[in-house]
Amino acid sequence: MEALKTQLEENKQKYLDELFELLRIPSVSTDPSFSDDVFEAAEFVKKKLAAAGADEVELVATKGYPIVYGEKIIDPNLPTILVYGHYDVQPADPYDLWETPPFEPEIRNDSIYARGSCDDKGQMYMHIKAFEMMMEHDTLACNVKFMIEGEEEVGSKHLSKFVEENKDKLKADVVLISDTSMVSIETPSITAGLRGLSFLEVEVTGPNKDLHSGVYGGAVANPLNVLCEMIAKLKDDDNKVAIPGFYDDVEDVSQAERDEMASVAMDDEVYKRSLNVKELRGEAGYSTIERTAIRPTLDVNGMWGGYIKEGAKTVIGAKATAKISMRLVPHQDSTKIGALFTKYFKSLAPDSVTVKVSTFHGGEPYVTPIDSTAYKAASMAIEKTFGKRPVGIRSGGSIPITALFERVLGVKSILLGFGLDSDDIHSPNEHFGLFNFYKGIETIPYFFKYFAEITQKNN
Amino acid sequence: MEALKTQLEENKQKYLDELFELLRIPSVSTDPSFSDDVFEAAEFVKKKLAAAGADEVELVATKGYPIVYGEKIIDPNLPTILVYGHYDVQPADPYDLWETPPFEPEIRNDSIYARGSCDDKGQMYMHIKAFEMMMEHDTLACNVKFMIEGEEEVGSKHLSKFVEENKDKLKADVVLISDTSMVSIETPSITAGLRGLSFLEVEVTGPNKDLHSGVYGGAVANPLNVLCEMIAKLKDDDNKVAIPGFYDDVEDVSQAERDEMASVAMDDEVYKRSLNVKELRGEAGYSTIERTAIRPTLDVNGMWGGYIKEGAKTVIGAKATAKISMRLVPHQDSTKIGALFTKYFKSLAPDSVTVKVSTFHGGEPYVTPIDSTAYKAASMAIEKTFGKRPVGIRSGGSIPITALFERVLGVKSILLGFGLDSDDIHSPNEHFGLFNFYKGIETIPYFFKYFAEITQKNN
Repeated sequence: MEALKTQLEENKQKYLDELFELLRIPSVSTDPSFSDDVFEAAEFVKKKLAAAGADEVELVATKGYPIVYGEKIIDPNLPTILVYGHYDVQPADPYDLWETPPFEPEIRNDSIYARGSCDDKGQMYMHIKAFEMMMEHDTLACNVKFMIEGEEEVGSKHLSKFVEENKDKLKADVVLISDTSMVSIETPSITAGLRGLSFLEVEVTGPNKDLHSGVYGGAVANPLNVLCEMIAKLKDDDNKVAIPGFYDDVEDVSQAERDEMASVAMDDEVYKRSLNVKELRGEAGYSTIERTAIRPTLDVNGMWGGYIKEGAKTVIGAKATAKISMRLVPHQDSTKIGALFTKYFKSLAPDSVTVKVSTFHGGEPYVTPIDSTAYKAASMAIEKTFGKRPVGIRSGGSIPITALFERVLGVKSILLGFGLDSDDIHSPNEHFGLFNFYKGIETIPYFFKYFAEITQKNN
Repeated sequence: MEALKTQLEENKQKYLDELFELLRIPSVSTDPSFSDDVFEAAEFVKKKLAAAGADEVELVATKGYPIVYGEKIIDPNLPTILVYGHYDVQPADPYDLWETPPFEPEIRNDSIYARGSCDDKGQMYMHIKAFEMMMEHDTLACNVKFMIEGEEEVGSKHLSKFVEENKDKLKADVVLISDTSMVSIETPSITAGLRGLSFLEVEVTGPNKDLHSGVYGGAVANPLNVLCEMIAKLKDDDNKVAIPGFYDDVEDVSQAERDEMASVAMDDEVYKRSLNVKELRGEAGYSTIERTAIRPTLDVNGMWGGYIKEGAKTVIGAKATAKISMRLVPHQDSTKIGALFTKYFKSLAPDSVTVKVSTFHGGEPYVTPIDSTAYKAASMAIEKTFGKRPVGIRSGGSIPITALFERVLGVKSILLGFGLDSDDIHSPNEHFGLFNFYKGIETIPYFFKYFAEITQKNN
C-alpha cells in the first residue's frame, strides 16, 4: 500500500487536472439547455474508466441520460464492490453570487471551487483514480463494478429500470458511495443514516389573466396572497409540520443514539456564526443536529408569481407557484407523505382559486447497520488514513437510490463520504478541499483491502 | 362643430397610423433597458404636438425622463385647460401570453391591441388630435396647456419638482386627464373618485448564502416560509387588512352613494364568468364594486425566492422578496400607511431573519366634486356625443398626481376617461376600442366648448 501512497504523491497535479476537465463540463441535468453537456460528461467518465483499466465499459442508454458502466472481475471467489456515483450536477443559479464562474474550476484556500467539485464529480472521480492506482500496482483486493449515473439531481429517474433489468450484472456484496460529508477533518465520520425526500410543485390559479390591482384589487382572490396563506398553514407555531398524519410513522430514536449525536454536535453559537443568523429556527423540543438528522421537515425551495423584475407593477398575477420539499426519516414513506401533503394542501384552498399539485422525485430514508462488514471495513480504512476512529452519524440529506439498491439487489450501501457540510454543495461557491480529495483517493484502497479481509475471515 | 366631425371621419386612418407609430416605441419606464425608447417616445409626442399647432413646445429635462410641454394661449380672458397625460407604459411581461407582440399594434375585434393602446398613449393622443382639429377649424374655445410625462408608471418621480417650480407657467382652471375607464359604452361614466396607492418591496434574509435543504433543513429559518407566514398575517379571516391603524382614516361613504354605486354595478355572476373564477374573494360586508372603489385593500404584486426554474433544486434560498401594494381611499395618507405597514411587518419577523422594507412610489386618493364646472362640462360633452347622461363613479385605480395638482396648483382634475375595465391595461393583450378612441377625439372639443361657456356664464 505504500507504493500507492507514493504514486498518489507523484500524480496529485495530474489527477487534479483531469478532475478540472470534468468540472468544466456544465452537466446540469435538471435544465434541458445543458443536455449536450450532460452527455459529454458521460463520455468523459467512460473514457477515464476504460483508461483506468475497467472491462466492459459502456454507456447504457436510458430514456434520459446514460449510465456509465464498467467492471473488473479478478476472482469470482473474492467479494464484489459496486461503486455508485453521479456525473450530473445541481444548477449553478444564482450565477452572480459565485466569486469565480461555476464551471471554471479554481483553487482557493486549498479547495477546488466549482459546481460539482464535491457533489459528486470530485468524490466520484476519487474512485476512478483509486481504482487506477490499484490496477497499476496489482493490489485490487475485490472485484469491482462501476455504475455512474447522470440523473441523480433529478431523482435518478431511469436508474431503477436499469437496476431491475440487470440484477445479475450488478450482483455485489456492497454498494460503495462517496456522496456525503464528514463532521470535520478532525472528527472523521461515516453516514449511517439518511433522510428521505418528497418533492412537489404547487400552482395556485385565480383569475384567467393578470389583472390591474387597482381595478380588481379587493374583489378577487390574489393567488400570491392565497399561496402565502396556504404555505403558512403547513407548519404550526412549534414549527412542526401541520399535515395530518405526517408524524405517524416517524422512527423513535433511542436516547443512546441521541446522546451519541449530542457528543459530536457542533455548538449552536458556532453554527449561527457560520450562517450569520441571530437565531436558529426549528421544531420545538429537538436540538439542531436532531432537527437535521432524525426529524422530518418541510421547506419551500422556490416560489414565484406576479411581477418579479426591477421596479413596480401594480398587477394581480393569474398564477402563483411554489416548489416544496419534505425531508423524511426512517419508516416514513415518500409516496404516502406526498399523498398526505396533496390532500391537506388542497383542503386549504378557498373556492376562489384552483390548485394543482405535481409530484417530482421522492426517495426513502435509509439506515446502514453499524455492525456490518462494510461499516467495519470503512471504519478501519478511515482510522488508517485519518489516524482516528470515525463516528457514525445521521445526515439530513437524501440519497434515494440506497433504498432501491437494498430492495432490488438485496445489498446495503456504505456511505464513505469525504465532503464537509460547509462545502456549499447546492449553493454558489461549491468547493471541495484538496486534502479531502486526495485523502479520499488514499482511503478507498484500504476499504477494498479490509472489506476483502473481513469477508474472507467470516467465511 | 359639425366640421370637426367630418374631419374626424375623413382622417380616421391617418390618426390611427400615427398612434400605431407611437405604440411601436416600447417606452417602458420601469425597466432601464428601454431607456432609449422612452426618450424616443417623448420626441415623437413633442413633434406631433408642435405639428398640431402648439406654441413653446419643448422637452423639459428632469433627472429621469423628460416632460413634453406645449401651449396655445388664444385669449387671456378665456379659461385655461391643462391637459395631462403620459407617454410611458407598463412592462409587457409576460410576453408569451400576448396573442400578438405587445409593441406591434394590430386591430382585432375592432380594438387596437398593443401595450399602451389604452394606458395612456391612445387616450393621451386623442387630446393632440382633438387639439389639432380645433386649431384647423379655428374652434379652440379655451386656452390650453399640455404636460405629458414619461414617468407615470414609476410614480411620477420627477413631476412634482417640475410642477412646484413652474406654478405660473402651469396656471390653469382645470386639469383634464384621460387615463381612466367608463362602466361601458352603453353606460358612459365619469370617474369622480380614485384610490390612492402605497407600494413597497420587502426582503427577508435568513442565512448568508443559499443552503442545501437536506443538510440544513429543519434547523434554520427558511426565508420563503417565513415570508409566506408574514404575508399571511397581513389580512385577517374576514379579508380585512390586519395592520393596526390601517382603517383609522377611511372615509365613511354615505348610503346614498352606496346605493348609486349598486345601481351601476356589474352582476357578480357576469364578473365571475369574465374572470373564469368559481368564487370572488374580498372584505366581508361589502359588495364587489364597493370592494374595488370605496374600500382599501392589499395585494402582493410579485414575489420570488429560491430556485424558480424548471425542475427540482433542494435549496433553502438566502433571501425571499415580495412587492406589496395597498390601494387607499379618501382621507388615508400614503406615507402614513406605508409607515404603519413597515412597523407592523417588521414586528411579524422572527429573530431568525432580518427584514428590509423599501418604499416605492405612493399616491393619495382623490375625489372630484360632481357640482364643479368641469364635471358639468364633462357631463354635457359626454351626453352630447354618447347620447346619454354619464354616471359618476369611483374607480379602484390610482392617479397620484391629481392630489399633487390640487395641492400645488390649486386646481381640480377632471377624469374624462374613455377606456373600459376590460381593456387589460396592466395585463397581456392590452387593447383600446376603435370606437372609444374616435369617440374620445369627438368628445374633447365639446368639453372645451362647454367649459368655456359655463365659466363665462358664471362670471
